[in-house]
Amino acid sequence: MNPLLKEIRRNPMLWLLVFVPVVFVAAKLKPEAHTVLFVLSVLAIVPLAALLSHATESVAAKTGDAAGGLLNATLGNLTELVIALAALRAGEYMLVKASIAGAIVANTLFMLGASFLLGGLKHRVQEFNRAGARLQAGLLFLATIALLMPSAIAEVDSASSAAITHKLSVGLAVLLIVGYGLGLLFSLKTHREFFAGEEHAGEGEAPWPIGLALATLAGVTVLVALVSEIFVESVQKAAEAFGMTPAFVGFVIVALVGGAAEMAAAFSGARKNRLDLSVSIALGSAAQIALFVAPVLVLLSYVIGPTPMDLQFWPGAVVMMLIATMTAAFVTTSGRSAWFVGVLVLMVYVIFAMTLYLLPPQAQ
Amino acid sequence: MNPLLKEIRRNPMLWLLVFVPVVFVAAKLKPEAHTVLFVLSVLAIVPLAALLSHATESVAAKTGDAAGGLLNATLGNLTELVIALAALRAGEYMLVKASIAGAIVANTLFMLGASFLLGGLKHRVQEFNRAGARLQAGLLFLATIALLMPSAIAEVDSASSAAITHKLSVGLAVLLIVGYGLGLLFSLKTHREFFAGEEHAGEGEAPWPIGLALATLAGVTVLVALVSEIFVESVQKAAEAFGMTPAFVGFVIVALVGGAAEMAAAFSGARKNRLDLSVSIALGSAAQIALFVAPVLVLLSYVIGPTPMDLQFWPGAVVMMLIATMTAAFVTTSGRSAWFVGVLVLMVYVIFAMTLYLLPPQAQ
Amino acid sequence: MNPLLKEIRRNPMLWLLVFVPVVFVAAKLKPEAHTVLFVLSVLAIVPLAALLSHATESVAAKTGDAAGGLLNATLGNLTELVIALAALRAGEYMLVKASIAGAIVANTLFMLGASFLLGGLKHRVQEFNRAGARLQAGLLFLATIALLMPSAIAEVDSASSAAITHKLSVGLAVLLIVGYGLGLLFSLKTHREFFAGEEHAGEGEAPWPIGLALATLAGVTVLVALVSEIFVESVQKAAEAFGMTPAFVGFVIVALVGGAAEMAAAFSGARKNRLDLSVSIALGSAAQIALFVAPVLVLLSYVIGPTPMDLQFWPGAVVMMLIATMTAAFVTTSGRSAWFVGVLVLMVYVIFAMTLYLLPPQAQ
Repeated sequence: MNPLLKEIRRNPMLWLLVFVPVVFVAAKLKPEAHTVLFVLSVLAIVPLAALLSHATESVAAKTGDAAGGLLNATLGNLTELVIALAALRAGEYMLVKASIAGAIVANTLFMLGASFLLGGLKHRVQEFNRAGARLQAGLLFLATIALLMPSAIAEVDSASSAAITHKLSVGLAVLLIVGYGLGLLFSLKTHREFFAGEEHAGEGEAPWPIGLALATLAGVTVLVALVSEIFVESVQKAAEAFGMTPAFVGFVIVALVGGAAEMAAAFSGARKNRLDLSVSIALGSAAQIALFVAPVLVLLSYVIGPTPMDLQFWPGAVVMMLIATMTAAFVTTSGRSAWFVGVLVLMVYVIFAMTLYLLPPQAQ
Repeated sequence: MNPLLKEIRRNPMLWLLVFVPVVFVAAKLKPEAHTVLFVLSVLAIVPLAALLSHATESVAAKTGDAAGGLLNATLGNLTELVIALAALRAGEYMLVKASIAGAIVANTLFMLGASFLLGGLKHRVQEFNRAGARLQAGLLFLATIALLMPSAIAEVDSASSAAITHKLSVGLAVLLIVGYGLGLLFSLKTHREFFAGEEHAGEGEAPWPIGLALATLAGVTVLVALVSEIFVESVQKAAEAFGMTPAFVGFVIVALVGGAAEMAAAFSGARKNRLDLSVSIALGSAAQIALFVAPVLVLLSYVIGPTPMDLQFWPGAVVMMLIATMTAAFVTTSGRSAWFVGVLVLMVYVIFAMTLYLLPPQAQ
Repeated sequence: MNPLLKEIRRNPMLWLLVFVPVVFVAAKLKPEAHTVLFVLSVLAIVPLAALLSHATESVAAKTGDAAGGLLNATLGNLTELVIALAALRAGEYMLVKASIAGAIVANTLFMLGASFLLGGLKHRVQEFNRAGARLQAGLLFLATIALLMPSAIAEVDSASSAAITHKLSVGLAVLLIVGYGLGLLFSLKTHREFFAGEEHAGEGEAPWPIGLALATLAGVTVLVALVSEIFVESVQKAAEAFGMTPAFVGFVIVALVGGAAEMAAAFSGARKNRLDLSVSIALGSAAQIALFVAPVLVLLSYVIGPTPMDLQFWPGAVVMMLIATMTAAFVTTSGRSAWFVGVLVLMVYVIFAMTLYLLPPQAQ
């Protein structure tokens, strides 16, 4: 367990692990203290997500490039997946969808924009691999179009559409997973040399031994699942207490909490002038949520949910995803960045957050 | 008539010509067998379209570059035009519009995507002339904006808008034809060297003698017109029998039937690593339908239709055309392609087809 | 006063200054002759705008690059600002908003497109600085997204949204001004070398002495303000007399009148093969109106308007701004232009103008 303790000593974010036992005790003693439980569960999820991310990368580093890339690409958003599963089991489909849409937008705008800004404040002009950014933007574009369809159908025909929306959602989910799989085949196998220089892993840190990594992966996933249940139960009531709208909570708070660990990695890459890494984490993670996590949740809802979940999002969320994708495509075409590009992208995110914060609850 | 017979021996698609007499006989004997007539007329139109396309190219090859390009650019979608005229005379404006929108989307997404995929499976990376793709994408963008306006007006003001929509449609039709004409002037005359390497024609096959080509052009146009009438009469009833929605039939089936000959040429170009040819056929044909065929149909409807036709499309069709144009612009900016680009573009098409297939009929 | 007279002799547009006293006399004698007053006030504003623009550039040329650029960037649309203030004081918020949206669209499409066309008719292919065009397109994109939000909120929740729309509008206004300021910091200070070659000023004409320039700036601003009041009072009634819809007047007529002076400069730059200058005037001016003039008007409305003004635009206007921004981004990515690019951009503008001209008044 030495490497784990060393990692904890090295990384101050992991000191928050102390809140993991605290939140369990608090949930037992004061199950109705929603605001406290919400804050504690957030504080506990952040370090667990960081551990999960480190363990995934260590396993990936051991298993060779293609298999490791695949592992990273499927388990990279394990935290988001586990939180969403907890909400799915509770039948909180609005929260699931808001957190999916929010995670896509937060990764595409907040994580990318802040990486550009933080990197640009230190380095005058930064370059990154355009091919990778274009591939991820293309995948995101595909996913956004897919998510547009069920809302569009519901708009033109509100009465008879529930059954149709479910059929369409399953079809789209399968299509997106196939598209994601083919994208991995393309970028990790048949045309991998175009995406070189984007490699995750390493980052200076030595990977853990495989046994420790696998044990951490398993153990931490269980812990995240348990904390997520407390989080999902408390988040809506806590939001009311803070005067936040549910849309703001799902879209902004949950998304930022779930992505905290990846953001830390992306920002640190940008400061070290490894913008390839930051762009790849930000857009890759958004694409993964849109083309893998969301479709898997739809298919799983037939097994574990109280009723099936569809892919019909609130129209405002679809518009925000579409704008986020267009913004990412626009700012990454040149393959270069400076601080103001980061400001522009962040401001688009602030506009969305501001709107959701002010939006009356019944309108969502 | 030797070159015609040689062409028929060489090209298995032309063996389907045997269905031309069959469909006429069947329509005489069993006019109420809609499903059979639909299938037979599809089988008869495909080889006729291929002949028409070959004859047009032969005439174009004889008349010199600029005039030949102009001929190709005006008669290249003769099949679509003749089918649409049959539907126009029958007053089937929904079918006309669905087939126009469907042909634009099918050419922009299906023909382009399948060319990228088929070419990419054989060649690792393929390059094509960006200038040509940008010009066609720009023209398509202009047409999509024009087609957006009448729907937008109808949305804000449903009562008094019929007269206004007709006035606006005529104005837009004239504008689009002028834009198309100026685009030809630009690409065939004033700045033709930027679009070189895009030349159609040739493709290894020797062009026919001019007399045979002109006779084929005239004779086959008449045959297509006669078969189209059977096709238009049978398609809606056949669709019901197959359990397809009218939108799916017009948008997908009619569009793929009408474009079969061009698709064969585009795919064969892509396999031969002449992607310039494929991109130019796919986007050029889409632009021609949007900026020439559709406006001409609007203007002709004042002469031959029971009532004037406007350019007001079903909002979903406008959105699909807009997304198709954006997709084409996005994937052609780099001037390079690999197999996965084709997958992405095809998947957008599949999303549309899937949605239309599931859409309840009354919602269209 | 010699340079002023010399300028008047040199520039035929300034001969229209004779209409300034005429319009004041006419307004005194015949206050109800709206059509005459409208025409006279247009004829008077055009030369005043040209003087204002020349005086601003002269002051800018004296005060050094960064400060001069800042002055140009804040006072460059003084005419539009003064006209809008007159309408704001009169509580004509529909006119204010239509003229803001119209000025953005007219600068982005009409001024840019006509510059490309006029330049392209004289020069085969023209090049311009892509970095500048991308920055301005990015700022415009940000502004368009901001202006989209209040309309989107109003759509989903019409009842309780007035208070929310006002709060959101103030927040967005502050955000846009901050974004505009940071954009100036970026392009004039920290990364100015990327935007070199874009410098306004000079243009062959010697700048005026600072005293004359400042006096002209002050005096002409007062004159524009006085004429604008007559213009605002007469424009709506005159529009009815001409059979124009209010949307067409605000969006097209007011926008073209307010921007006449800048258009003259942009077109002359394009003819002299200084397309950098034209693109920078057109897109820079549009960005300034969207990110500086419009937000300042919202904030000022709390001080001088009868009631606060929000940023909620008519949905059609938002769509047109969005399309205009996308068009500008699309045609400027290559950094090259030829005459047909101008035709394409102008045609998008004609489509909008045609639609607004035909739109029934109650639908706006």
